[in-house]
Amino acid sequence: MSVARMLTGDRPTGRLHLGHLVGSIANRVRLHHRYESFFIIADLHMLTTRNTREDIERVADNAREMVTDVLAAGVEPQRATFYLQSAVPEVGDLNTLLQNLVTVPRLERVPSLKEMARDAGKEEMPYGLLGYPVLQAADILCVKGQVVPVGRDNAAHVEVTREIARRFNHLYGEVFPVPELISSATPTLVGTDGRGKMSKSRGNAIALADSPAEVRRKVRGMYTDPNRVRADVPGTVAGNPVFAYHDLFNADRAEVAELKRRYQAGQVGDVEVKEKLATALNRYLDPIRERRARYEADPGLVDQLIVEGTERTRAQVRQTLLEVRRAMGLTSAYSRLRRRAERSRARPVAPA
Amino acid sequence: MSVARMLTGDRPTGRLHLGHLVGSIANRVRLHHRYESFFIIADLHMLTTRNTREDIERVADNAREMVTDVLAAGVEPQRATFYLQSAVPEVGDLNTLLQNLVTVPRLERVPSLKEMARDAGKEEMPYGLLGYPVLQAADILCVKGQVVPVGRDNAAHVEVTREIARRFNHLYGEVFPVPELISSATPTLVGTDGRGKMSKSRGNAIALADSPAEVRRKVRGMYTDPNRVRADVPGTVAGNPVFAYHDLFNADRAEVAELKRRYQAGQVGDVEVKEKLATALNRYLDPIRERRARYEADPGLVDQLIVEGTERTRAQVRQTLLEVRRAMGLTSAYSRLRRRAERSRARPVAPA
Repeated sequence: MSVARMLTGDRPTGRLHLGHLVGSIANRVRLHHRYESFFIIADLHMLTTRNTREDIERVADNAREMVTDVLAAGVEPQRATFYLQSAVPEVGDLNTLLQNLVTVPRLERVPSLKEMARDAGKEEMPYGLLGYPVLQAADILCVKGQVVPVGRDNAAHVEVTREIARRFNHLYGEVFPVPELISSATPTLVGTDGRGKMSKSRGNAIALADSPAEVRRKVRGMYTDPNRVRADVPGTVAGNPVFAYHDLFNADRAEVAELKRRYQAGQVGDVEVKEKLATALNRYLDPIRERRARYEADPGLVDQLIVEGTERTRAQVRQTLLEVRRAMGLTSAYSRLRRRAERSRARPVAPA
Repeated sequence: MSVARMLTGDRPTGRLHLGHLVGSIANRVRLHHRYESFFIIADLHMLTTRNTREDIERVADNAREMVTDVLAAGVEPQRATFYLQSAVPEVGDLNTLLQNLVTVPRLERVPSLKEMARDAGKEEMPYGLLGYPVLQAADILCVKGQVVPVGRDNAAHVEVTREIARRFNHLYGEVFPVPELISSATPTLVGTDGRGKMSKSRGNAIALADSPAEVRRKVRGMYTDPNRVRADVPGTVAGNPVFAYHDLFNADRAEVAELKRRYQAGQVGDVEVKEKLATALNRYLDPIRERRARYEADPGLVDQLIVEGTERTRAQVRQTLLEVRRAMGLTSAYSRLRRRAERSRARPVAPA
């Protein structure tokens, strides 16, 4: 049996941070060994909320940084196909063909879209943003993806893909696998300021590419229990971001347990708890840094991976579109006109 | 100064009838002498409401019949480019790129879309149908159309095109002409049954391709003043479809005036009024029939016109898409990755 194909990816918004790692990247690193993996750099999706020239000018650098981070996190390049969505224009063609297979009220029931519009400061929903799940269906189906890892936010999107795939197959014959969702625990990581989730735009993120000194500086500035004015005041561990990070990133479980005990008893200063966190985090990030250093030692290597992946993907997508147009009957419509046209041209001119 | 470019066309629903002729075709015949004319056979638009295999299987025949009718109506093939929309897949690409330049509430304000959904028996609006005006913008802009003839129904659509063109030019620089609307009187022709407008699906249509005998038969069966039980009962001319047709198609104005006078005075039978209408209609249709006969004498000629037109259009659309992607910065995003990738590959391998 051949290996199932997985599609996953992100909009090219730049450097990844610990929130991405915990939320999806670690999961993909684990999964990509089991599947033939496509990693989309979804710049057309970015355009649904950010579409100025300036936004688009950052795509190349952001794509390179994002892929470097994914590779640094442990995805093996020979087991993954990275591609730039906008460089596969056939995706737009498929998107257009799939748009009639889903209704407006169905898309309006997808919970995340209104949030996305609000986050982007859009007062009215852009038409393309309402169609985000359709474009995503085009992404998944154009490479005949069979599995899609999902978190809380995008499970509803991939449900739309499944419905579109079934509807297409019902109308035109079996062309698409109906992709399976792989749900994994994808915890939301709180930011260093303790206010909501980690996000670059909120300035509360630790990037995978941050230097050890930068990590230490950010950890020192972290929000912690605000009631603890001195080291001998007993502190609260629950909901304390410093301990949330210890739980997730400090491999020395005994140290974490001991720190928690002393913190709750008022027997440890914040400085020590944070220094130990910084050390643990840097230990956690060191292998990622080493892999990044190897990729960065050969500038252009990541670009090459993206370009080769894009070319490979485009060949696959063109093949899929041929099948789609054949199944729908669009190929035959035009061929019939062409065949008659050719017979007409081939006929000898009648003698005068 | 070069001649402005016009885009016009229809969904390929088959043979045209007198309602089409009066409503738009006569107008296009007049306009196509003044502009470089593209005639779209809008099968992707058809898919927004009719998208079964059976619907699509009829596209080739319907396209051929429709173009034959347009040529028979007087459009000169050397002055027009006919093309099959679905055979220009780059239109779908442009459609996808333009979808972020218009909002859902804006599209919901386009009056005709809800009617179209209702007419098609769709309980819920298909997403693609809500985007009908966006796809139409892609059609007009992909050939850089400068003028678009509009009737009552599609003026609101072309307004959306104008907004999208302006929005695109504002964001990315001047790529598209903002097309002008050419409004013309486009009267709605009542059907032979006197109940609402002429429509093939209502069985109340006289096709341009109907034979003289068929026209006579249909005219004999026409609805007329229902209160007129005998020829000596004075009849009503206003709202009477037989006289509506006399007004539009009978070139003998004196005959029409005389018939009206006698009808209102109860001095003429319905049979005579209808026989004279049938004669007038056949006289009106005769030059159309002669032109059709010339096109049909060379089967494949119309197919050839469509295929050549489609190839010509596709070349133009590819050129437009290059400009669009360059203006948006998408070309440069991918080129930057490619250039670095190439430099990387070109570097000699370091000695061991």
